[in-house]
Amino acid sequence: MKTGIITIGNELTSGGIQDTNTAFIARQFHLQGWQVAATMSVGDDEVMIKEALDFVLPLTDAVVITGGLGPTADDITTVAVAKAFNLPLYTDEDILNHIKAIFSRYGLKWTENNAKQAVFPQGAQILDNPAGTAAGFSLRVHGKVLAVIPGVPVEVKKMFPEVVLPLLCRSFPEESRYLAVRTLKLFGLSEAAVDQAIAGIDLSGVGIGFYPRFPENHLVLSARDAGEAAAWLRVKKSAEEIHKRLGSYIFAYDEETLEGVVAGLLKEKGLTVSVAESCTGGLITDRLTDIPGSSIYLERGLVTYSNRSKTDLLGVPVEVLQKHGAVSEETARLMAEGVRRLAGSDLGLATTGIAGPDGGSEAKPVGTVFIALADGVETSCRKFSYRWNRRRVKIIASQAALIMLKRYLTGEMNHE
Amino acid sequence: MKTGIITIGNELTSGGIQDTNTAFIARQFHLQGWQVAATMSVGDDEVMIKEALDFVLPLTDAVVITGGLGPTADDITTVAVAKAFNLPLYTDEDILNHIKAIFSRYGLKWTENNAKQAVFPQGAQILDNPAGTAAGFSLRVHGKVLAVIPGVPVEVKKMFPEVVLPLLCRSFPEESRYLAVRTLKLFGLSEAAVDQAIAGIDLSGVGIGFYPRFPENHLVLSARDAGEAAAWLRVKKSAEEIHKRLGSYIFAYDEETLEGVVAGLLKEKGLTVSVAESCTGGLITDRLTDIPGSSIYLERGLVTYSNRSKTDLLGVPVEVLQKHGAVSEETARLMAEGVRRLAGSDLGLATTGIAGPDGGSEAKPVGTVFIALADGVETSCRKFSYRWNRRRVKIIASQAALIMLKRYLTGEMNHE
Repeated sequence: MKTGIITIGNELTSGGIQDTNTAFIARQFHLQGWQVAATMSVGDDEVMIKEALDFVLPLTDAVVITGGLGPTADDITTVAVAKAFNLPLYTDEDILNHIKAIFSRYGLKWTENNAKQAVFPQGAQILDNPAGTAAGFSLRVHGKVLAVIPGVPVEVKKMFPEVVLPLLCRSFPEESRYLAVRTLKLFGLSEAAVDQAIAGIDLSGVGIGFYPRFPENHLVLSARDAGEAAAWLRVKKSAEEIHKRLGSYIFAYDEETLEGVVAGLLKEKGLTVSVAESCTGGLITDRLTDIPGSSIYLERGLVTYSNRSKTDLLGVPVEVLQKHGAVSEETARLMAEGVRRLAGSDLGLATTGIAGPDGGSEAKPVGTVFIALADGVETSCRKFSYRWNRRRVKIIASQAALIMLKRYLTGEMNHE
Repeated sequence: MKTGIITIGNELTSGGIQDTNTAFIARQFHLQGWQVAATMSVGDDEVMIKEALDFVLPLTDAVVITGGLGPTADDITTVAVAKAFNLPLYTDEDILNHIKAIFSRYGLKWTENNAKQAVFPQGAQILDNPAGTAAGFSLRVHGKVLAVIPGVPVEVKKMFPEVVLPLLCRSFPEESRYLAVRTLKLFGLSEAAVDQAIAGIDLSGVGIGFYPRFPENHLVLSARDAGEAAAWLRVKKSAEEIHKRLGSYIFAYDEETLEGVVAGLLKEKGLTVSVAESCTGGLITDRLTDIPGSSIYLERGLVTYSNRSKTDLLGVPVEVLQKHGAVSEETARLMAEGVRRLAGSDLGLATTGIAGPDGGSEAKPVGTVFIALADGVETSCRKFSYRWNRRRVKIIASQAALIMLKRYLTGEMNHE
């Protein structure tokens, strides 16, 4: 089944507001297994609303319109839709009394423009709004279904799944097949390299989408089937094939985050970590503390930006800093070992590097980062060379550090 | 002048990604005083791209298309646009060599699919991409201008204002009167309160836009005039009026960030700061180190998550933690004083609170945060009660801490 979304409002076409309704509704359609043929935003303008309907309706079986149902003068969606289909308007007395009751219950002053919200095109089915004053309505036109609802995002988030989706499922019963969706999150390969690596995999009808989220790449697999088990079987089969080729780059699935996976592994193994950050400036610790209950596994985080703090707080000898520099493998190793020892944690993780834009040299250009992990027995250290701006160097270095920690915890590190 | 925006990508119509490009470009058009007649999103689908062009082009003078210029199989925008206008494709050797050079410079493995990014429709003007590998292109069709650029949001944010907008201004010189734009960044007032406060100000033709960016509110003033001086005069006059009413909530202008303003003040006064964070988990230090040269003013940052680390690293007595709790005014003050003293910095900034979702009590519910600032003579402390989720509590608390530091540095703190 093909669907369309039209969002209406001058605030959308002026860029004043981020249109979140389109993405929300599109995702809901997608999860139903319904294709979204097109989405449009137009201003509060009768001609443009008609143009949008003339364009989207022929391409689709069902269209959802949001916005322009309020009481103010620029809310003209109902009038525009009625005109587009040559339908007369009428005032629904039940709805009018309902709105007046809301006003009196909350002690609001009634003004005549609010009566607009009780006006509907003849033949419309009224859609109750469980989250606001303005009701929506639906029309059946040439076998297609048009649902018109208010544009306030919190109202859409309630009204769409509770009212509009059931209406569409009733209207198109043959289109309600099961959809299985699995997201694979990768780090360390470019989008093109991922694409190349999975070329030739028999996806047998499983849809695949690429979603870069710096510094990660997300692959979304989806399959539709009459039965839940059959849909999952196909998605899982494809996911396994991809895992065979790219397993070492996959760090999480679906809603999991890298910090969430690391936190889960630390809790599972009963290990604690402490962090000494130089170039990442606190970002690793910030990410690790985004997970509820992080005090169980995170002992402390130190942003040892100055040489003095590296010596005072981590015990890195002045001579090492002088001889090898603050950005060096030697310093990174001693930072990881130092924070581990002084915090009394099981693991110590450390970063030192040059985030830029200044501070680079020929031997150590901007983007040079050393990351070390100490467990009291062994200390691993890796050197990275990044070509991003300051903020992105911080982000990708924090990612590489958390990936190193994850690989240590899963035992992958030894096989590298 | 009428403009249109078409964003292309299955990730947009599936709801997988929030389409930020449309809002960004619409806002830029709006600032130019150009109307946005319609915006559309369609999937990576040749037929739909042609349909979208057929719809949007007749309604507009200029159309910007984003997305689908990458190297992977689903990137088909160039082919679709060429077909829509019956233009043959060719490979631009200069661009091909440029892309290959990027690959070899960064030691990336060349794969043949990357050559796709050097293919253009005959007659296209190539648009350099200052932020990524894939170039864009523009076409002139029946007096209308079509600009096609990659869809990666960071690339759009650089390429649109630096490449596309100048191109459009050159193409439509009569539409390019001087535009003065000033952004006022506010913290601490709701959108409705700002709206209320500025009601009745004579803006005399100055456009005003409202852009909430949690936890900040941005007000954008714009004026267009034949002369640069006249346009700026009008914007400045309005900005001054707003400053009279809301000055204490304005912390930055235009491209400035809060951390940038704080960094500038610290450098200007030759002061250093050290940070002890509990509930903010490293986010304050992360923000302070986003500014190049932060090692001049930031001595160290400590994420003292455990009680032990508050005692070991900051000298907070065990008795204070036992009597008042880790989340208390007493602890916050001692954290700020301790980090200042032990780091030997001029100032000490500290946070302690309950980010949630667990750990709250009746006396100290989730969202309770204490922020303290010590200068060796006096220590200030403020208590905040937030009602947001864990991540947002971290963000708004880091904002409140940096605002406190800024007010101290500007001397505003004494007048509160």
